[in-house]
Amino acid sequence: MNNFQFKNPTKIIFGKDTIKEITTQIPKDAKVLLLFGGGSIKKNGVYNQVKEALKTVEVVEFGGIPANPEYSVLLDALKVIKEEKITYLLAVGGGSVIDGTKFLSAAALYDGEIPWDILTNNIRTEKGMPFGTVLTMPATGSEMNSGAVITRRETKEKLAMGGPGLFPEFSVLDPQVITSIPQRQLANGLADSFTHVLEQYMTYPVGGLLQDRFAESILQTIIEVAPKVLKDPTDYKAAANYMWSCTMALNGLIQQGVPGDWAVHGIGHELTALFGIDHARTLAIIAPSHYAFNFEAKKEKLAQYAERVWNVTTGSTDEKAQAGIDKTVTFFHELGIDTKLSEYTKDYEGTAEIIAKRFTERGWLALGEHQSLSPKNVEEIVKMAY
Amino acid sequence: MNNFQFKNPTKIIFGKDTIKEITTQIPKDAKVLLLFGGGSIKKNGVYNQVKEALKTVEVVEFGGIPANPEYSVLLDALKVIKEEKITYLLAVGGGSVIDGTKFLSAAALYDGEIPWDILTNNIRTEKGMPFGTVLTMPATGSEMNSGAVITRRETKEKLAMGGPGLFPEFSVLDPQVITSIPQRQLANGLADSFTHVLEQYMTYPVGGLLQDRFAESILQTIIEVAPKVLKDPTDYKAAANYMWSCTMALNGLIQQGVPGDWAVHGIGHELTALFGIDHARTLAIIAPSHYAFNFEAKKEKLAQYAERVWNVTTGSTDEKAQAGIDKTVTFFHELGIDTKLSEYTKDYEGTAEIIAKRFTERGWLALGEHQSLSPKNVEEIVKMAY
Repeated sequence: MNNFQFKNPTKIIFGKDTIKEITTQIPKDAKVLLLFGGGSIKKNGVYNQVKEALKTVEVVEFGGIPANPEYSVLLDALKVIKEEKITYLLAVGGGSVIDGTKFLSAAALYDGEIPWDILTNNIRTEKGMPFGTVLTMPATGSEMNSGAVITRRETKEKLAMGGPGLFPEFSVLDPQVITSIPQRQLANGLADSFTHVLEQYMTYPVGGLLQDRFAESILQTIIEVAPKVLKDPTDYKAAANYMWSCTMALNGLIQQGVPGDWAVHGIGHELTALFGIDHARTLAIIAPSHYAFNFEAKKEKLAQYAERVWNVTTGSTDEKAQAGIDKTVTFFHELGIDTKLSEYTKDYEGTAEIIAKRFTERGWLALGEHQSLSPKNVEEIVKMAY
Repeated sequence: MNNFQFKNPTKIIFGKDTIKEITTQIPKDAKVLLLFGGGSIKKNGVYNQVKEALKTVEVVEFGGIPANPEYSVLLDALKVIKEEKITYLLAVGGGSVIDGTKFLSAAALYDGEIPWDILTNNIRTEKGMPFGTVLTMPATGSEMNSGAVITRRETKEKLAMGGPGLFPEFSVLDPQVITSIPQRQLANGLADSFTHVLEQYMTYPVGGLLQDRFAESILQTIIEVAPKVLKDPTDYKAAANYMWSCTMALNGLIQQGVPGDWAVHGIGHELTALFGIDHARTLAIIAPSHYAFNFEAKKEKLAQYAERVWNVTTGSTDEKAQAGIDKTVTFFHELGIDTKLSEYTKDYEGTAEIIAKRFTERGWLALGEHQSLSPKNVEEIVKMAY
């Protein structure tokens, strides 16, 4: 097990009818910017519950944060924060709204002139403007971590940021929100959270026995509840386990003391930037090819995964490892998610070269848990995923 | 799954040679009270590492906190805190030293006249004196939670306290400390952490699928590493997994959204107060009888435990559940821990009645996850454990 430091101060408020609890979490003298996305919260009742809970504090609203939170939109919100002298941010939405709010938390207190520098210069935020979240779409885990990914359409870039100052002060998780999420997004969330676990698990054994079992626990739980969530989003038991699994998948716990990969995300982000493919679906496109390409380096963990998560008890290590990849592809298909780039776009030719070139230009010369994947390797992985 | 609120702000610093990190965690202008136990830290090198890391701050020392931290000793430490105008506490030890430090953290800022009232009046500490810990004996999980248990020899009482102000600011977990722990204490720690998980798991199903799997993950990991830790405490991989399992067993995570029992601890504490039996061993005495007495209410979880943790795949629910109890007894025996009160004392007759009377007098009329265990039931459980 590797040495690690772990601290996660976010307060989770989980369960039925818990949105009203935000009243007690936000300082009484706060001036709140309420941030949300395309307006679905006005249809599903969440907006009204939030407004009711906020009626004792001053609130300004900013809606319209898009999926893959867009820099130019966030700059408009930043202007509101400064003009209105906002002191507290409340994100009501999924990963995009929460990630956008993290950017604003950082940018609101950032000294530099150009906020985009936070992303390109990897500036860690030690202290941001305080914020809470009301999660309306379980998937990214952003509600209990300190990372964010921001998109800039102008330059077709999608970059990560973070720092210890960007944990939400609180996050409200009411599993009942799942009832109003479209099937497509539910499937995305399941694939996204599942892949988050794989990125932290599908590497090589370092004796993190407990971490491995925790990761497998989350994978098993997602597999168990996925068909129930898709079939009947009013199944509260399934919804609650799904929601808590998404949070635990990426709140920092299972990554402690073990190597992380994250190449699937690194490559996947480019597919979103280039083609606008849903984030989760880019992961389902890249993961199988990535594991196949790095089969030798990952086969021990692939075999363990096949055994413990998918109950593949016979065969050699190689056979079990291959079964692990096959089971993963089948799982994505059962969620209704295609796993080849050509199933999403006819313009896929040349994509591998473009991504490899972007990685080279950006100085990303070594990806994966061994830091051994070159842009040339990335090119091959993307070609395998056509 | 039940509604829950969860926040755990303790920073964990985990791994080889990490004691030096405390330098960066304590404010430079702090006046530190360094608290420890019987002096083993002066033999195993931990004391020297801590002193080296503290050399830039002012330090006063207070040693001699006994196992089952004793109120009268802690009052002496409290006097030092006030006289020396201490601003920061550093516990270097196991659960007893850390629990004692939590009492001091609370008492140092307590308004009332008699510190023992914090325990008898169940006063939750919202804000205590800040403190960190260097863990020298994995077992209790106190290094990452906000609870403590304090003993008062004068009245033969052992009572619990806690509150959100009593999380350590940081805890240093260097698994190498295990090499200097006597076998008896290692065995105690394994039994203690194992039973902590059982108290939060061996109840009845409420659809906490992920919580159940996390609990089972910790149990499986303790079972896997226990013989290695006992045979060769220098086995770093085993030591690290053992240490992290102890912390995860009682840092609040696995109890979220599910019922808790804690009757084994409630009864066990009385055996320590009455006979001075090691805390962990009282749990091994009470747990099997408790599960046998409450067989009908717990059999579903007992059977799940037997299946998933002990790989008992055949038999009826009742048979599997009984196998779960039997496997637990065998596990304690393999740790070298006896599971009957009569193996610890010849004066056991009448103990059941004494404990039942104490519970009645204290107003503890309903224990267990269903709050259905009366003092009379407790009497029967203790008799079964003779």
